[in-house]
Amino acid sequence: MSRTENAQKPHDRMAAYLESDMAAVNTLIRERMASKHAPRIPEVTAHLVDAGGKRLRPMLTLATAHLCGYDGPFHINLAATVEFIHTATLLHDDVVDESGQRRGRPTANLLWDNKSSVLVGDYLFSRSFQLMVETGSLRVLDILANASATIAEGEVLQLTASQNLATTEEIYLQVVRGKTAALFSAATEVGGVIAGAPDDQVAALFEYGDALGVAFQIVDDLLDFQGDAGAIGKNIGDDFRERKLTMPLIKAVAKADAEERAFWVRTIEKGKQEESDLQHAIDLLHKHAALFDTSVVARAEAARAKAALAPLPAHPVKDMLVDLADYVVERIN
Amino acid sequence: MSRTENAQKPHDRMAAYLESDMAAVNTLIRERMASKHAPRIPEVTAHLVDAGGKRLRPMLTLATAHLCGYDGPFHINLAATVEFIHTATLLHDDVVDESGQRRGRPTANLLWDNKSSVLVGDYLFSRSFQLMVETGSLRVLDILANASATIAEGEVLQLTASQNLATTEEIYLQVVRGKTAALFSAATEVGGVIAGAPDDQVAALFEYGDALGVAFQIVDDLLDFQGDAGAIGKNIGDDFRERKLTMPLIKAVAKADAEERAFWVRTIEKGKQEESDLQHAIDLLHKHAALFDTSVVARAEAARAKAALAPLPAHPVKDMLVDLADYVVERIN
Repeated sequence: MSRTENAQKPHDRMAAYLESDMAAVNTLIRERMASKHAPRIPEVTAHLVDAGGKRLRPMLTLATAHLCGYDGPFHINLAATVEFIHTATLLHDDVVDESGQRRGRPTANLLWDNKSSVLVGDYLFSRSFQLMVETGSLRVLDILANASATIAEGEVLQLTASQNLATTEEIYLQVVRGKTAALFSAATEVGGVIAGAPDDQVAALFEYGDALGVAFQIVDDLLDFQGDAGAIGKNIGDDFRERKLTMPLIKAVAKADAEERAFWVRTIEKGKQEESDLQHAIDLLHKHAALFDTSVVARAEAARAKAALAPLPAHPVKDMLVDLADYVVERIN
Repeated sequence: MSRTENAQKPHDRMAAYLESDMAAVNTLIRERMASKHAPRIPEVTAHLVDAGGKRLRPMLTLATAHLCGYDGPFHINLAATVEFIHTATLLHDDVVDESGQRRGRPTANLLWDNKSSVLVGDYLFSRSFQLMVETGSLRVLDILANASATIAEGEVLQLTASQNLATTEEIYLQVVRGKTAALFSAATEVGGVIAGAPDDQVAALFEYGDALGVAFQIVDDLLDFQGDAGAIGKNIGDDFRERKLTMPLIKAVAKADAEERAFWVRTIEKGKQEESDLQHAIDLLHKHAALFDTSVVARAEAARAKAALAPLPAHPVKDMLVDLADYVVERIN
């Protein structure tokens, strides 16, 4: 392997390895997001799909199917399914969060309206469901139906946990499982299931996806306080402004003295924020080592992801999955 | 049959006939709308489920399963599935329409917020999907996945057709198939499918549901201009105020002279409405016999529904389905 290849990010190497499959997935996505009767649908969807996230979730499905020796056609369906579910939840999230920016571009709810985001999300969710039915695998349907329920439940839980200083790390982790890890673990699990992998390998793939998803979200929440807006495609301090209790905040609140607690009550519970509050919040996170402690949890999850892969056979994809787990936590400054 | 029984409305007779099944459906609905982690979910859902619509759609599934001689347990799952899909679309509709009243009560988006309506709708949709997977029937999954996609597509189409005087009756009927008939026809079709009915009977049940749903929605749109608010659980003229091109309006617009057209352009396309405009709109509908002509189409659809039932065996439920088709159009004054 040349130094250039070595230097590539693991998801870029994975994308290169899965290039022809990903092309098939993209074709299927484009085909199925069409609507004969309602041209608004592909307009809205294209805006989001063309913005091209990293397509990490569908790649996980393709990768795990390959890792388990699958040579049928349905991993393409499942990868498109996973991306449709992801896109549908992004559309609904942006309505819920009243976001103005996603992947560095204006959100669909800003360009069109909330109505379009809600209904086009519903359409994509239904289309994802059709794609899975085509695989003919009830087990796959069961996994993805459960993941969908967990996602929605996590989002509702986040709604009620927001602005609530009593939110514990346990509740936070339930939210994270819902909003992120449930789809990661379903993506990796169905790759194994469609390949007919033995139960211990399927369980291992589920755990890898779960740990990777949890690590990924914790790092995301960390970068919200210390990343730079260009690199993460959103603004620093969004979670603070939206009064979301993410892990760094929860850790700082737990160690707050009376004066600090008053600060958190005012800014998070009462939502009375001033310009200088974000910097003060970040100072408090540093004071209590909340960012460092959060990074320790993220690194432990990445280690859990790598360890989970033990029952899987040696395969170039396996090495990429290991590197991917490392890379997720390497994003931490 | 006593005179009292004769006088009962057909869906009340059907509810009496299906009483023990409906009790099982209600238990299952209550069980599955629970959420260990997010208590907001059953709160929002209970508000809507307890308001107790007529439960027409789940009854159609139970009724058609009985009509085709089914004696297994899964029609209960499917009836609950259909009600969950219906409830999810109502929650999302109320966000889209910015409605304040549903079934004579304040809507969930007003009592909680739009976020809760969107996410709880997503949760119910996922739960409906789990319920269907449990039946183990890929054919049922296929039918309901397709219905879900048609529903979302119809809703998006309605969004772009609103406020547009160029909307044709053809487009209107596509919207109606999406927003109403797709779930009616899926509800009746899966009843036959789960019972293992022969293809011609399944096709007949699909057509019955489709025609009944179309008739039902056309009558609803008619009553929006001539019903009374108490009886229909919403305000007269809502569609006019929301600038929706329903069949009566489309028919009146088609016959408008220059002055009338200017009125429609101002009130529907530009949305500049005054207090007295609703009455003037209703006068124009009467002038062009638009309400009468619409009622003729609804009656034809009800007749199509009844005719579709020919291939089904004689059965008390069959008579109720016939009466139900008559009843839908009897609601017209």
